[in-house]
Amino acid sequence: MVPHPNDPSLYSFVPVDPTSDFPIQNLPYGVFSSGGGLAPRVGVAIGDFVLDLWELEQDGRLNVGDLGAFSAPTLNPFMALGPKLWSHTRARISELLRHDNPELRDNEELRKLALVPMAQVKLHMPIAVSGYTDFYSSKEHATNVGVMFRGKDNALQRNWLHMPIGYNGRASTVVVSGTKVRRPRGQLKPPGAELPSFGACRRLDFELEMGVVIGQPSPMGEMLDEVSAAEMIFGFVLLNDWSARDIQQWEYVPLGPFQGKAFATSISPWIVTREALEPFRVQGPAQDPAPLPYLQQVQPNNYDLQLDVGLRAAPMKESMRICRTNFKYMYWSSVQQLVHHASSGCAMNIGDLLGSGTISGPEKDQRGSLLEISWNGTEPVELSGGIKRTFLEDGDSLSLHGWCQGDGYRVGFGEVEGTILPAQ
Amino acid sequence: MVPHPNDPSLYSFVPVDPTSDFPIQNLPYGVFSSGGGLAPRVGVAIGDFVLDLWELEQDGRLNVGDLGAFSAPTLNPFMALGPKLWSHTRARISELLRHDNPELRDNEELRKLALVPMAQVKLHMPIAVSGYTDFYSSKEHATNVGVMFRGKDNALQRNWLHMPIGYNGRASTVVVSGTKVRRPRGQLKPPGAELPSFGACRRLDFELEMGVVIGQPSPMGEMLDEVSAAEMIFGFVLLNDWSARDIQQWEYVPLGPFQGKAFATSISPWIVTREALEPFRVQGPAQDPAPLPYLQQVQPNNYDLQLDVGLRAAPMKESMRICRTNFKYMYWSSVQQLVHHASSGCAMNIGDLLGSGTISGPEKDQRGSLLEISWNGTEPVELSGGIKRTFLEDGDSLSLHGWCQGDGYRVGFGEVEGTILPAQ
Repeated sequence: MVPHPNDPSLYSFVPVDPTSDFPIQNLPYGVFSSGGGLAPRVGVAIGDFVLDLWELEQDGRLNVGDLGAFSAPTLNPFMALGPKLWSHTRARISELLRHDNPELRDNEELRKLALVPMAQVKLHMPIAVSGYTDFYSSKEHATNVGVMFRGKDNALQRNWLHMPIGYNGRASTVVVSGTKVRRPRGQLKPPGAELPSFGACRRLDFELEMGVVIGQPSPMGEMLDEVSAAEMIFGFVLLNDWSARDIQQWEYVPLGPFQGKAFATSISPWIVTREALEPFRVQGPAQDPAPLPYLQQVQPNNYDLQLDVGLRAAPMKESMRICRTNFKYMYWSSVQQLVHHASSGCAMNIGDLLGSGTISGPEKDQRGSLLEISWNGTEPVELSGGIKRTFLEDGDSLSLHGWCQGDGYRVGFGEVEGTILPAQ
Repeated sequence: MVPHPNDPSLYSFVPVDPTSDFPIQNLPYGVFSSGGGLAPRVGVAIGDFVLDLWELEQDGRLNVGDLGAFSAPTLNPFMALGPKLWSHTRARISELLRHDNPELRDNEELRKLALVPMAQVKLHMPIAVSGYTDFYSSKEHATNVGVMFRGKDNALQRNWLHMPIGYNGRASTVVVSGTKVRRPRGQLKPPGAELPSFGACRRLDFELEMGVVIGQPSPMGEMLDEVSAAEMIFGFVLLNDWSARDIQQWEYVPLGPFQGKAFATSISPWIVTREALEPFRVQGPAQDPAPLPYLQQVQPNNYDLQLDVGLRAAPMKESMRICRTNFKYMYWSSVQQLVHHASSGCAMNIGDLLGSGTISGPEKDQRGSLLEISWNGTEPVELSGGIKRTFLEDGDSLSLHGWCQGDGYRVGFGEVEGTILPAQ
């Protein structure tokens, strides 16, 4: 019997360190280019290598019935093929990489073409983002923000426990890890100022989030349920929802965040498939009051996915961890978010990206934004060498990491990193 | 000397009624298909005909240096060619249609191919919408809504006079005129209800808006000014921002409208170019306080553009006018909206669509939504035959019209119509 690609006992002929994010149980998809003038194309991460799916297809080792899917500069054409093909393809790639399969292992010529050292590639945006939506689904985060701005007794808004609150973000500025982020300018009206002025953001923040990549469409006018929504999810990425707190604060009433969030959103380059995360599904927090029937879920739709945040302030040589939390704390699951998103009849498209909302946990060191970590700028975080930060300064580098811990292996996401450039 | 395509004295060999929206001074672009199995392609409206640009190109009468631009199913490839090409192309089309040019007029074979009666075509979405943003820039509308929900003394929010307030809408459900609109379902919490319930929207509304079509991109991290922003505007359409007031009311704090606006936005099929609207530019209302420097404008960026709204309630045979207003009343111009949109460094893309926000005027019969016309449902509008409406009912048809009145001709937009289907 053929072992399932998630089988913990599998291992590849490609050497993979137990602390690597990319063992054979993962096989995340990305878009890469390497020297030699070949255009960006689809690959899979395995250990310290990228497996070039286009080369495998050319050699007749992989066939998805769409010759353009792997030579495309985004994963959108592959995602369009649907969940069955996603699963078959992953199973075939797993088979090709297994230690006991000579097909690729013993074919030196093909191996040289198809296995590219990760150090030699450039990673690109893995998808063309159709729409970007950002949710607000961590109860701990929403409560922290609420206590800061409205006090303890009115921390959660009245609607928060009844639906996954979200807003449409700006798809045009979703960028891949490593893209430098220019400090935005905007209208600022600090407390006490009579009138707003226009200038560089002074309260630049990150938000630790996961992003859901939608791989199948749903038509306008129709709703989804738990099962149909889950099947549309191709996979997940790390997502940093960069936020200009001062711009946001002045602009957001009554229509929500706009320029305070529009300047950049960074995602990790590898999309970890929903299938690879299956073994790490867990029940989310109890929901009280019970959600309305359309939002109720039978399956455990949360994930035991460890997350941490590293900050390398401009003068520092190494990054320091400023948050360690877990995706499992989210009050509203990604499936509930997607069901709610389509509930009015809103059409969903291949390439839609759904941000989970900032992921904070119950403990103080589990806060997923500087707004919370520095408690609105009043408690600076102490970094090494006496350096302190309330918000991000020019030259600072912020990185998010995430992984699910298996027995002797981890299914990881790599990282999403961004360094702050001074305002123009 | 060649007359400018806007010259009021021009006329075409194609007969055009003085009340037609599409004289030779207009030449709006759209995407159409006709019988005979040809795929949707680019055309220009002239009187009761569509001029097939692809046929003209095939015949060597029109050359934009991009053979795919007119056979494409959207105007995005043509828009990508830039403002100089837009202008040259319009001048050449004007020349081909002039009464005194025999090129097309006397070429019966080509005329038969290239001039398709409008009654025989199907009109499609003219653009692939990259991002859809909706503003809130009529002072009269914002004041009316403010008075209704917060009282006279706090009608305008503190930030409203300082920037064009807007939010990101949902691009996936922007549809062309004639597309039926299904009444959305969603979470409702009517006044007095203890808990929300899920059901069909009971306060379904339209919003009379203009849409700006962005035809050129701007890079991430860079700002625009009045001149560079204006040059990116390809043209304008009528836009109906369908709104589920009850869903919106319960969901919108603190992140803005989401499912209450996500189910549908309708636009008119013909894009009237910025150039065709040049003769109708007027100064907008005085802005007090003066906008911050980045939002100041030297040019008159408003348009004297008449607008009306027709409602045909389900039992009625003919539509009745329920609003007559003018685009010139807008407090923030489309150019200011675009400059603000990019002010944080937000990249703009070809195919971005910017809704102006509901266009209301100072008078009672100039209100551009049923929310205002019926004053939050308390003053039903009386239609013919004793029929009354506070909000839209199933089977109702709502249409917007707009035109600039020249001396003996009008540069018009046609209409955007939508009929309400019952909730699923």
